[in-house]
Formats: sequence, C-alpha cells, structure tokens
Amino acid sequence: MSDLLSGAAFALHPQLAADTVTVGDWPLCRVLLMNESRYPWLILVPRRAGLRELYELDEQDRGQFFAESCQLAQTLQRQTGADKINIAALGNMVPQLHIHHLARFRDDDAWPAPVWGKHPVRPYEAALLQALRERWRQTLAALLSLA
Amino acid sequence: MSDLLSGAAFALHPQLAADTVTVGDWPLCRVLLMNESRYPWLILVPRRAGLRELYELDEQDRGQFFAESCQLAQTLQRQTGADKINIAALGNMVPQLHIHHLARFRDDDAWPAPVWGKHPVRPYEAALLQALRERWRQTLAALLSLA
Repeated sequence: MSDLLSGAAFALHPQLAADTVTVGDWPLCRVLLMNESRYPWLILVPRRAGLRELYELDEQDRGQFFAESCQLAQTLQRQTGADKINIAALGNMVPQLHIHHLARFRDDDAWPAPVWGKHPVRPYEAALLQALRERWRQTLAALLSLA
Repeated sequence: MSDLLSGAAFALHPQLAADTVTVGDWPLCRVLLMNESRYPWLILVPRRAGLRELYELDEQDRGQFFAESCQLAQTLQRQTGADKINIAALGNMVPQLHIHHLARFRDDDAWPAPVWGKHPVRPYEAALLQALRERWRQTLAALLSLA
C-alpha cells in the first residue's frame, strides 16, 4: 500500500536521524551513514511508513529492496576491501525497519563478534564525517540506475 | 551457476552441522534449528557451494531466497508470538553463507541486545529438541508450495 493510500507519510525515526547522516535516496530506501568511526557502516531504510519487518514489504518492494541491499553490500565490499559484509535487520530498540550493512575486517575492534553493544560508539571527527558522506553520495549516485 | 556446472557439491559446514539440527530443505535453502533453548532460532543455508555473501546469489536465487526468508520470518512470528524478528547474515566465524532468523521477546535473556556472544549456549534437552524439530518440519513442509 502506498503512503498516500495508507494516509501516513514516511519520516525517519529520530534515533536513526541522531545516529547517522543521510547519504541520499535510492528508489526504495534512504541510505544512511552511521556516525561510528570504528567500522564502515551504512543503513538502508525503506521509505514506507509504519514498517517493522522485512516481510511487510509488498512483492514489488521486496525485489527492489533486495536489489538495493545487494548493490550496497557489494559496493561496500569493493570500496573498503572488507573481509566480510555483515547484514542485519534487528530493530529491538528502534522499531522503524532499518537494515544494517557493515564492512568487517579481521583486525577491527569487534572481530569476529557482531558490532552491536561491543564498544561505545566513537563518532567521526565532523569534517571527516562530511567528507565520507560526500564520497558515499557520489559513489552511490553513480549506481542509481543499477539499483 | 548450478553446482553441477561449477563442479562443486553443496555440503553443510561442520560447525553449522554441530550447532543445529536439520529441519528440512526448501526449494533453495536448507532449514536448520539452532540447538539453543534461550530463543526460537532458525537458520537458512542456500544449497549452493562456495557462497559467502548474499550478493553472490544469482538473480533467480535472490528472488527465491527472499521469498523463503520472508516466509520463515513471518511463520516464526506467528508461531511464537514474537515481539520482533531478528534477521542477520554475519559469517565472521563460519564462512558458509547462512542467515539467522530469530524470534525475540521483550523478556528474553538478551533483549534488547542482539543474541550473539551475550550468553553461553544452553542446548535443548534431547527429547525436546527432536520434538521441536518435528513440529517445525511439519509447519514448514505445509508452507513448501508457498516458499
């Protein structure tokens, strides 16, 4: 059901807005860069109001989501040379459907454990955060037609 | 590419085999029940040799995987009454592509944290494990045509 038909407009959850910067919008998802300098960490948020679980996406959105997720994961791996990509839809604390995409390295702070709750967040220095956001913006905009 | 063409046959990673019991095979994935009594926990393993990342699935398998994942997640929610489903493709320790599907509850042992590394595994009593495996086998077999 479209946001128009459901009567509800998509708005990013305030906690996600506080923890990230917006890189841009792909056809379905908003792409966020997590402000956590320990790991390259992007988040996809389908721009549909009221979703909590992936299975609530309708048939068309499911295909589009998976295309965007795979595109993002593959790009993240190529751009960072990650040893492993971690993808997760958790949402125990922030109910709005959002899907983590992380580049993991054998020498990163949490390896081989998952990153959540392992270390306190270490935000980027402000100028670096903006530079990274701009670099991801350009990289992901170039992939728009492929998503 | 089919396993036949690639020359490699799918075989479950020994660590996954040790930590789980097999519930059955859906068209693409083997369905495993994690032997961890703290949380209802099923794992999907696409039966394709040599995969590490979701984006390595070919186009047809991507659609099938997402259908099976959504079916499993929705069934897990309905059968358990979970407050939230957690889905994750991590693979930092076991390289074979496998995707966790967990039923989470506000009063479970790890809530709201992710489950990994939070508590030592507490295996099911053997008879209960077999009973659960059989219950899931019947539930998931009934959904086969929908997957």
